[in-house]
Amino acid sequence: MTYMIDGLQYANWSEKIFQEMRVGAVDAVHVTITYHENFRETVHNIERWNRWFEQYPDLIFHGRTAACIKTARETNRTAIFFGSQNPSCIEDDIGLVEVLHTLGLRFMQLTYNNQSLLATGCYEQDDTGLTRMGKEVVREMNRVGLVVDMSHSAERSTLEAIEYSSRPIAITHANPAFWHPALRNKSDDVLRALGQSGGMLGFSLYPHHLENGSDCSITSFCEMIARTADLMGAENIGIGTDLCQDQPDSIVEWMRVGRWTKSIDYGEGSADKPGFPPMPNWFKDNRDFGNIRNALSDLGMAPSEIDGVMGDNWYRFFENNFGPLG
Amino acid sequence: MTYMIDGLQYANWSEKIFQEMRVGAVDAVHVTITYHENFRETVHNIERWNRWFEQYPDLIFHGRTAACIKTARETNRTAIFFGSQNPSCIEDDIGLVEVLHTLGLRFMQLTYNNQSLLATGCYEQDDTGLTRMGKEVVREMNRVGLVVDMSHSAERSTLEAIEYSSRPIAITHANPAFWHPALRNKSDDVLRALGQSGGMLGFSLYPHHLENGSDCSITSFCEMIARTADLMGAENIGIGTDLCQDQPDSIVEWMRVGRWTKSIDYGEGSADKPGFPPMPNWFKDNRDFGNIRNALSDLGMAPSEIDGVMGDNWYRFFENNFGPLG
Repeated sequence: MTYMIDGLQYANWSEKIFQEMRVGAVDAVHVTITYHENFRETVHNIERWNRWFEQYPDLIFHGRTAACIKTARETNRTAIFFGSQNPSCIEDDIGLVEVLHTLGLRFMQLTYNNQSLLATGCYEQDDTGLTRMGKEVVREMNRVGLVVDMSHSAERSTLEAIEYSSRPIAITHANPAFWHPALRNKSDDVLRALGQSGGMLGFSLYPHHLENGSDCSITSFCEMIARTADLMGAENIGIGTDLCQDQPDSIVEWMRVGRWTKSIDYGEGSADKPGFPPMPNWFKDNRDFGNIRNALSDLGMAPSEIDGVMGDNWYRFFENNFGPLG
Repeated sequence: MTYMIDGLQYANWSEKIFQEMRVGAVDAVHVTITYHENFRETVHNIERWNRWFEQYPDLIFHGRTAACIKTARETNRTAIFFGSQNPSCIEDDIGLVEVLHTLGLRFMQLTYNNQSLLATGCYEQDDTGLTRMGKEVVREMNRVGLVVDMSHSAERSTLEAIEYSSRPIAITHANPAFWHPALRNKSDDVLRALGQSGGMLGFSLYPHHLENGSDCSITSFCEMIARTADLMGAENIGIGTDLCQDQPDSIVEWMRVGRWTKSIDYGEGSADKPGFPPMPNWFKDNRDFGNIRNALSDLGMAPSEIDGVMGDNWYRFFENNFGPLG
């Protein structure tokens, strides 16, 4: 069986997008439900998802285990898995890890770009690794089956999370720095340690993470995938598009600024390019995953490896990491 | 199969009490986890339960469906089902009904003793029945499988809830007013309507609900059970002890007063008897259910009816009412 799974999206959700997931035969998507929101605000976002599940039961449903992806395929729907890009949702309360897992949360970043209560983000000057609470929370996440995601974390923190976590972790949406040296892309050291520990990297299509940005060629992107397979293992990579379809620029500002500053922080953008950059023309939305599959095939990647990258590796990872430590 | 199920307790939980549940062979207990607490505070109470489940896995676990009661029996443990005695936990937000159901809530009273956003409590002067939000919330509770509990509600509100709810409701802990005319005990009209709709009454052992209070005889209690069986059907009754074991008197004050008044309200007590009254000597804790079973047998009640009262009726009710509307 070969599944199509996207390791991260944060679109401006609508019936149109859910229909495009069906056109693209996307079996499962890990969606970001919260950034800087506290627990109560995160629950409100879950309530919005519950309304969408009620409204579009023929297109989407709430995914909780890998088995839901089988159900999705069998019923022609997309299983939606929840994730958080920042630990704001657990506030300073470790008990919320299990509560949010019960509500369906399956991934949580230990940091967004800044220092959090748990670890250091990739935009901080000094990276002090996992905090005292960070270690406690990683152990609790391991216990209940909430995956540690270090996509926006700094180098030392990421290496320490890989080391300290008793279960494999994920970098759901980033690319290798060897291909495009953005602050958010990952060093060979991180990728090697991630692969050796059975972790997963999801390749991002967000233009700031791409060589030549919005003009990145699909060939360059797929060659990068092949090189990364050599570096960290073809079974430890997947897609994590970071698709932010139909979002107004105010949303990227919320991601970057939240409530932590009164000024503007441009993150990966800049004063003259403050908003969302245009997506590459070969990946605009959920209908375009076939282009990547075809380009990997044109490159001569083995069919089973392509299946792995397009979803089967995420499937196996979901299967092993969403349940309680057994 | 015959199960032992208690339809309501709010003890000062401890390892001792969980062990007493095992000594008494109690397969399942509906426990109150919240009264006047808002959503965030209720979640904190759930976190405390999660710690107890982690700490005493050989004694208790979190019950979610009737099947958990079978598991409890097979593994010599007690399944703990969550309930709320007031709708404060959903605040003014209907989306929290599904969220709390996902977190395990299986019963919610539409009111404690006062007017709520949903209905009227039994201590109010005027009973205006289900409010606009009350009707919406009952429909949503029906949809997800959260049982409407009217133990502390006023007459008209209770009759309207029975009528309006598309699924049977429960009065988890109260007695018939014909036996002891306390404000909290229920009229023949309510009990008849409850029985005809397939609802359940749980008989309370709280002394203020008993004929002669703490001095109530077990024979009188069991004769009352037999009469109620005649009135509303032997398949619609069970036990709901309202056991508040080991609680300090400050807790009964919290139940009665919450944050809604700056004065003292004595509820079913009085200025000279402000605290918890002593339990009858034949029912002090979870080890004493056998006394009730024996006394029902001495009265000549049929064995299958006794099994129904002691747990099998609740089992069937749990089986039909904790899942989504099918």
